[in-house]
Amino acid sequence: MELDDITITKAIVDDFSKTFMDYTEVDVALVGGGPANLIAATRLAHKGYKVALFEKKLALGGGMWGGGMMFPRIVVQEDAKDILEEFDINYHEYDNGYYVANSIESVSKLISKAVSSGVQVFNLVSFEDVMIREDDRVTGIVINWTAVSVANLHVDPLTIRAKVVIDGTGHEAVVCSTVQRKIPGAKFDGVVGERPMWADAGERRLKDTTREVYPGLIVTGMAANAVAGAPRMGPVFGGMLLSGDMAAKIAISKLD
Amino acid sequence: MELDDITITKAIVDDFSKTFMDYTEVDVALVGGGPANLIAATRLAHKGYKVALFEKKLALGGGMWGGGMMFPRIVVQEDAKDILEEFDINYHEYDNGYYVANSIESVSKLISKAVSSGVQVFNLVSFEDVMIREDDRVTGIVINWTAVSVANLHVDPLTIRAKVVIDGTGHEAVVCSTVQRKIPGAKFDGVVGERPMWADAGERRLKDTTREVYPGLIVTGMAANAVAGAPRMGPVFGGMLLSGDMAAKIAISKLD
Amino acid sequence: MELDDITITKAIVDDFSKTFMDYTEVDVALVGGGPANLIAATRLAHKGYKVALFEKKLALGGGMWGGGMMFPRIVVQEDAKDILEEFDINYHEYDNGYYVANSIESVSKLISKAVSSGVQVFNLVSFEDVMIREDDRVTGIVINWTAVSVANLHVDPLTIRAKVVIDGTGHEAVVCSTVQRKIPGAKFDGVVGERPMWADAGERRLKDTTREVYPGLIVTGMAANAVAGAPRMGPVFGGMLLSGDMAAKIAISKLD
Amino acid sequence: MELDDITITKAIVDDFSKTFMDYTEVDVALVGGGPANLIAATRLAHKGYKVALFEKKLALGGGMWGGGMMFPRIVVQEDAKDILEEFDINYHEYDNGYYVANSIESVSKLISKAVSSGVQVFNLVSFEDVMIREDDRVTGIVINWTAVSVANLHVDPLTIRAKVVIDGTGHEAVVCSTVQRKIPGAKFDGVVGERPMWADAGERRLKDTTREVYPGLIVTGMAANAVAGAPRMGPVFGGMLLSGDMAAKIAISKLD
Amino acid sequence: MELDDITITKAIVDDFSKTFMDYTEVDVALVGGGPANLIAATRLAHKGYKVALFEKKLALGGGMWGGGMMFPRIVVQEDAKDILEEFDINYHEYDNGYYVANSIESVSKLISKAVSSGVQVFNLVSFEDVMIREDDRVTGIVINWTAVSVANLHVDPLTIRAKVVIDGTGHEAVVCSTVQRKIPGAKFDGVVGERPMWADAGERRLKDTTREVYPGLIVTGMAANAVAGAPRMGPVFGGMLLSGDMAAKIAISKLD
Amino acid sequence: MELDDITITKAIVDDFSKTFMDYTEVDVALVGGGPANLIAATRLAHKGYKVALFEKKLALGGGMWGGGMMFPRIVVQEDAKDILEEFDINYHEYDNGYYVANSIESVSKLISKAVSSGVQVFNLVSFEDVMIREDDRVTGIVINWTAVSVANLHVDPLTIRAKVVIDGTGHEAVVCSTVQRKIPGAKFDGVVGERPMWADAGERRLKDTTREVYPGLIVTGMAANAVAGAPRMGPVFGGMLLSGDMAAKIAISKLD
Amino acid sequence: MELDDITITKAIVDDFSKTFMDYTEVDVALVGGGPANLIAATRLAHKGYKVALFEKKLALGGGMWGGGMMFPRIVVQEDAKDILEEFDINYHEYDNGYYVANSIESVSKLISKAVSSGVQVFNLVSFEDVMIREDDRVTGIVINWTAVSVANLHVDPLTIRAKVVIDGTGHEAVVCSTVQRKIPGAKFDGVVGERPMWADAGERRLKDTTREVYPGLIVTGMAANAVAGAPRMGPVFGGMLLSGDMAAKIAISKLD
Amino acid sequence: MELDDITITKAIVDDFSKTFMDYTEVDVALVGGGPANLIAATRLAHKGYKVALFEKKLALGGGMWGGGMMFPRIVVQEDAKDILEEFDINYHEYDNGYYVANSIESVSKLISKAVSSGVQVFNLVSFEDVMIREDDRVTGIVINWTAVSVANLHVDPLTIRAKVVIDGTGHEAVVCSTVQRKIPGAKFDGVVGERPMWADAGERRLKDTTREVYPGLIVTGMAANAVAGAPRMGPVFGGMLLSGDMAAKIAISKLD
Repeated sequence: MELDDITITKAIVDDFSKTFMDYTEVDVALVGGGPANLIAATRLAHKGYKVALFEKKLALGGGMWGGGMMFPRIVVQEDAKDILEEFDINYHEYDNGYYVANSIESVSKLISKAVSSGVQVFNLVSFEDVMIREDDRVTGIVINWTAVSVANLHVDPLTIRAKVVIDGTGHEAVVCSTVQRKIPGAKFDGVVGERPMWADAGERRLKDTTREVYPGLIVTGMAANAVAGAPRMGPVFGGMLLSGDMAAKIAISKLD
Repeated sequence: MELDDITITKAIVDDFSKTFMDYTEVDVALVGGGPANLIAATRLAHKGYKVALFEKKLALGGGMWGGGMMFPRIVVQEDAKDILEEFDINYHEYDNGYYVANSIESVSKLISKAVSSGVQVFNLVSFEDVMIREDDRVTGIVINWTAVSVANLHVDPLTIRAKVVIDGTGHEAVVCSTVQRKIPGAKFDGVVGERPMWADAGERRLKDTTREVYPGLIVTGMAANAVAGAPRMGPVFGGMLLSGDMAAKIAISKLD
Repeated sequence: MELDDITITKAIVDDFSKTFMDYTEVDVALVGGGPANLIAATRLAHKGYKVALFEKKLALGGGMWGGGMMFPRIVVQEDAKDILEEFDINYHEYDNGYYVANSIESVSKLISKAVSSGVQVFNLVSFEDVMIREDDRVTGIVINWTAVSVANLHVDPLTIRAKVVIDGTGHEAVVCSTVQRKIPGAKFDGVVGERPMWADAGERRLKDTTREVYPGLIVTGMAANAVAGAPRMGPVFGGMLLSGDMAAKIAISKLD
Repeated sequence: MELDDITITKAIVDDFSKTFMDYTEVDVALVGGGPANLIAATRLAHKGYKVALFEKKLALGGGMWGGGMMFPRIVVQEDAKDILEEFDINYHEYDNGYYVANSIESVSKLISKAVSSGVQVFNLVSFEDVMIREDDRVTGIVINWTAVSVANLHVDPLTIRAKVVIDGTGHEAVVCSTVQRKIPGAKFDGVVGERPMWADAGERRLKDTTREVYPGLIVTGMAANAVAGAPRMGPVFGGMLLSGDMAAKIAISKLD
Repeated sequence: MELDDITITKAIVDDFSKTFMDYTEVDVALVGGGPANLIAATRLAHKGYKVALFEKKLALGGGMWGGGMMFPRIVVQEDAKDILEEFDINYHEYDNGYYVANSIESVSKLISKAVSSGVQVFNLVSFEDVMIREDDRVTGIVINWTAVSVANLHVDPLTIRAKVVIDGTGHEAVVCSTVQRKIPGAKFDGVVGERPMWADAGERRLKDTTREVYPGLIVTGMAANAVAGAPRMGPVFGGMLLSGDMAAKIAISKLD
Repeated sequence: MELDDITITKAIVDDFSKTFMDYTEVDVALVGGGPANLIAATRLAHKGYKVALFEKKLALGGGMWGGGMMFPRIVVQEDAKDILEEFDINYHEYDNGYYVANSIESVSKLISKAVSSGVQVFNLVSFEDVMIREDDRVTGIVINWTAVSVANLHVDPLTIRAKVVIDGTGHEAVVCSTVQRKIPGAKFDGVVGERPMWADAGERRLKDTTREVYPGLIVTGMAANAVAGAPRMGPVFGGMLLSGDMAAKIAISKLD
Repeated sequence: MELDDITITKAIVDDFSKTFMDYTEVDVALVGGGPANLIAATRLAHKGYKVALFEKKLALGGGMWGGGMMFPRIVVQEDAKDILEEFDINYHEYDNGYYVANSIESVSKLISKAVSSGVQVFNLVSFEDVMIREDDRVTGIVINWTAVSVANLHVDPLTIRAKVVIDGTGHEAVVCSTVQRKIPGAKFDGVVGERPMWADAGERRLKDTTREVYPGLIVTGMAANAVAGAPRMGPVFGGMLLSGDMAAKIAISKLD
Repeated sequence: MELDDITITKAIVDDFSKTFMDYTEVDVALVGGGPANLIAATRLAHKGYKVALFEKKLALGGGMWGGGMMFPRIVVQEDAKDILEEFDINYHEYDNGYYVANSIESVSKLISKAVSSGVQVFNLVSFEDVMIREDDRVTGIVINWTAVSVANLHVDPLTIRAKVVIDGTGHEAVVCSTVQRKIPGAKFDGVVGERPMWADAGERRLKDTTREVYPGLIVTGMAANAVAGAPRMGPVFGGMLLSGDMAAKIAISKLD
């Protein structure tokens, strides 16, 4: 059989555009493709929800690829070891209660499991704004190709309706920042900015900073600590994974 | 247990530096983390060879993440369908003999399988030069942090000794180009540059362009067609996967 | 009626993706949205051919918007006055045989007439390569979002099959340059580069430089003179308009 | 007849400089060449007023060319359908009350009608400041070549006297921002900045946000919502067109 | 009397546009506002010729302002001392035959004398191309605002007809380079590029390198040595001034 | 006589370094080489004071070279006509009381007269800070090569002691801004920023805004209006010249 | 003996990684490699403390290399002359009490003595954050490769535990700024920013501005004056050297 | 005693300008401040020659600061161990014949010894050209502030006369490249460019590649291998140090 270039083109455009049309209305829209959001998305898709995840870069995974100071290793503590096993990520104990994993293996497995579970990923797509309604509720997100802003083009965005939006955009917490900047008088706690490094306190705080900060908007991972003004943690990822797990649970409680 | 930041730091530095020391001498050094090299590396690690793969960016996967024109889908033809199944990559038939897969799932699974198989990946590391000896044979590669050149720093590189080097760096074919530029009189075919797009011919040509082009240096994937002046293919990846498979076989025949 | 954001999104995505699917195979693909190509495209669409025009920038019109030295006026000579009238472009005589028109009116009317005539325009899309076949014939073009290269992303292109391709990309003559660079031994005259300014000679030469330079590839407008090494003309546009007219005629003779 | 380069040069310089001299004093100066201002300018020129429109870029039309997310389509709702027809812009109904039009056709026809109606357009010219007088009234604008600031040159501007100035500069609302920044104690409402996306509310609000915000200064289109802190709308353009219509009516009431 | 902004604007536009119209046809067009061209232009204007000088930057004077290594002093030797006196430039003897002058005084007096003598200067205007005719003769130049290329705009140039063109553009010799690049087969000596520093030889060579290199095109100053492959001189300016003097004489012999 | 490169080098270094040593202590240090400061410096040097002027760019003259919108013409009103004559600058009357001059002639003559009068000019040198003493008095300035900051080098500055410092740095008023930013509690009026364009009011205000704003620090030209929050004027220069004249008078009253 | 590339690589990696592991816990961590910190580090290492110094650039020495205005000389006053002698730095008296030294000799000797004394230097490493604990005490620093931020990579940092941290980062005082920005309610005096130049007062103030500003954090050199709002000094280095001396003493008093 | 800012300024300017005047004529001018040139300069100064070394950056030392891949360690082999000892550089044996030293200590000691020995260093100064004479002999160099080219200024250079010039500019070999480019027909071997990495061969080749390549021009260090097309070596520095030693010997033989 001779390969036809045009059929290849059609297969890609047809499959993607149908998916895009279908995913303009979802149960959960996750912004950011880092580890916390990948866990949350996987959990939600497993439960049967319609889940879309938007990542501004080409590759998902955020800062996890680079480990610590470009040495591609991460550390996970005791209580998150189960998640590593669940995602088939190899690890070995370095010291009592400290487990080392390959950051490249970790991130690629988090991504592949998410997609296998039914999460629909849109990469190269940036969050530009939230959608709101009178009842002061986030009802979706406004998106655009990342390339549009990088190339400094003036092009209008499109919209995704979502019952729940999860902000997993790391230090910048872009969804929360947008809500705070654009709805000054709203009943929102505000983005305080992360405090200095303190792995232990940062990990512990994630348990309560992962929460619904505004009707329809949940925050997870480093973004959760940034919004609450809690410490940053560096290359230890246990809390991140557990935060994603918790964000999924909160979302489910809102969706049911 | 209270988490200690310094133990986290030590775990990462210790694990990585021991690995780096160990992998200064390998059986096969693969340059570039695109699909062909990921297949080749996985095959070689499965066979028990000591394999290091060097990727200049943070994330592996090259252009596969973006599918065609930022629509994250790829097409694979009939004869490479087995590889998709082997790597647990989902697909569906679009047209007779044309299979569509999610590019994000595909690339993340190729990466995770490679690492699981024992391939040691060094990301954020760039190829800077080859190592040679009198008998006109590539005996390893010269590497540096990618950040060094991006930040325009003047810092000396380090070296990796390898019995076989595989160039899977895509259109640029940087290893082959370096050999050609620096050893003008050597018995090398030269880098011709890829011809216009023609998926069918490009895919067919890969079968003979994947080969040992210089003693100790094998070329695979799009780099193979670029070196041979064969057509480019676009977002159809069957030939790439089969080329990686073949590169591994050639490497094995040299190593034994 | 309350406006629904998601219906707006769906309307745009649905309409565009159906059009894109439909236009992966066309009679004529024109590269570049300058005046010569706009005339050619309009003529071909009027005749009932399926015509797609690809423009790399946001706005079509090329250098015509800026007139001469940012003074938004153009000059047209006697023999192209009919085309101005046909496109409802106002003008007045400056000197015997020299007609002045508003460059902004001229370019916006050329664009609007083209679209009204049925030309399907794809803006923000760049030409990346040609498609060829054994019989040394251009059989289509390879395209990508302009934003992909501006943002320095590594993303594969898609393809458009066309019976005829018209290169109207101005001084750079990108389609012709690509054919010449990639098919060195082909039966092609080559890209000589334009000669110094000489309006009169430049305009006269366009009559024979507008032609089929390679099977399936016609060149028009300033690209035609650049390929032939003929003089450039500056802000006099009569020859450009007539060249577009001629390119359409040559294309029709090939299509019938 | 042999074409003479110098006569071409003279024709352009002579025609433009006479027009520039003539338009240093106008009835209405519109800043920004987006859809709302194009409608307003066309209406005013039809009524016989002397109208100058200043656009900082080479091409007019602002973000309309790119449709939504680089898919060149726009949506218009029921109550603005008449304007499409009036400007000969083709459309079809997508859903009940939602009409889709080609964004390239739309923008080129808005521009060409404006120029045909007698609007004098100065492109590549940036707004730099307002002119004022004791009675706290905007009496004109201060302009410069856009290229001067892009090239980081230090060159003084020139001035245009106008009875009415209309700010149609989109999200930035540059004329209103300048008045607010430079006349702190003035009786001006201030630039609040647009709220999150909500097409329906954004469109409705435009009816009262389009108004005279400072003596001699009217604001229209997205700039009107930005100044009032009303929601943004995305790629639905009905409200924009009606806002331009209303801005023209307000201007006429001031001029008579 | 109350000052009127609009009258100021009109005075500037009116005076400049009349001058520009008048100077589209001149006796001599000098490209570059460095010392050699300033001398040449002054001489020619004194003789009553119609002379236009085009400078791409805001200020004329080229590298003379900075003296040597940012120390604003220049050196002039014995045989050019008369020119300093003629232009009222102060100097004092440093060593036998070496005279030191203030570079800022020198350059400002060369400029002011040129304008006083009737030279019409167009600054911020770049040379873009030459105009030619069948008889292989330079008949003028093609110009554009410098800001157009700096701002990366696509805008057509305009033209100036001249009986003689003088290239005084320093090391780059842009007019000569353009002639050589665009008229490959022409009877032109070519641009060899300047040789290493050797003040004495460089100064002596200027006497014969200042000449008509192509019909209608004279080269002077550092451009003359660059075209001839003669040595560069550094911050000694006697030869430059004498070269300008000679270029004027050659031009006069052609004009009469 | 054979020219010796090294003698040329020595002549420049010797002359400049002696001058620099001598001018580390002056009567008046003027920051900025625009028209107001050039007038002030010339007046002060004529009176016999030791005067140094520091200009950050290669050429002096600031925005005067470019006239209005790159048309190299300026306008001067009746009451400053005498200064034009005094500096031998040609002009002609455009309208009753409005005189047009060539901006290039004007600026070059202002510069050449200043240097001839004995003003010592240091170009390519930037103001970095003021020097102060307990009695809250400006006692000099801190300078550095402009190239140091442009090249982003970390190099310490040097100092110039002055009895009076004049800030003629235009819109930015860098000396005044530095005093305000660094001495928050000082008895200084503050930098308000210029108001919108209004030539007549701007020119009139300059008469009282030109003054000693802090002990030892006088402000002149556009900087004076910027500090006082008075209107800007555009390309009319009468007030600038008179402001320089007045700044000199104020300085003389302080020095005597 | 034949040199083996791989042994060279192993020697470097092995030696560095062991040192890095060892220095994750130190007595004193100094941030910034300028003169004050080099003195302080040398003193502390001489006393037997475990000392690590982190410099973000390739070379240590900060602004000292460039002397004053790129003339590589520094001045030291009487009371710091002893330190020059102690570090074998040559000098000569210029004026009574003013000693001139070669800045390049000075800086290279300060660096070489520090390393010889046992200071462990990590160059190309940037300070990213502080580490803190409940008792509001700085307990270490967070570091990353400088190249990571220059190359705009997203990579997690690592940590160094230190009993005392010394901020010697010059004008920016980055450690102090970070503490102030991230711990708003903490008992910290704040970063006021340096006052204008006044060498004498600046030097005198350093004696009391060099101090522990926050538990565990000492500030020295120009950073000390910047934090206290004291004057800057320019290229006189006596106070800097004495400040480093004092910082060491304060640190020792905390460590014992 | 109160410190006087102006005396500090004078001390620096006076000392530097006298040195600069004195060093416009030297025995040896070394271009580049890397290890080979530092050794060569030290040797020559010890012998009593007048030696000037020009370094384009702020700090000397070139790539030595960064060790291998940003790990600040270097390796030196047996036969260069004596030089380490002579320069008081600490080292320890890693493996039989391989000695590891701290790269920061090594480079700072090479620099400090050079200056102590009487080498006059000019940093921030770039080589721009060579000086030549009829007898085809390099007679000196042409220099400029590095900041001039970085800031893209147009400023003339100055000159240094030297009996011998040594090119120690590393991979680029800028002096040799300039001679080759500007004197095409000269009796020079040419710049071949370095071959791939091969530490052993690279080190051995340095013994014969370090030589006088053109009358008056010696090449040393990596520049020597680059000119000869010999292999590069990476972070092993023994050969570099020995090459500097040899370059000094060749220079001495020419000078005597």
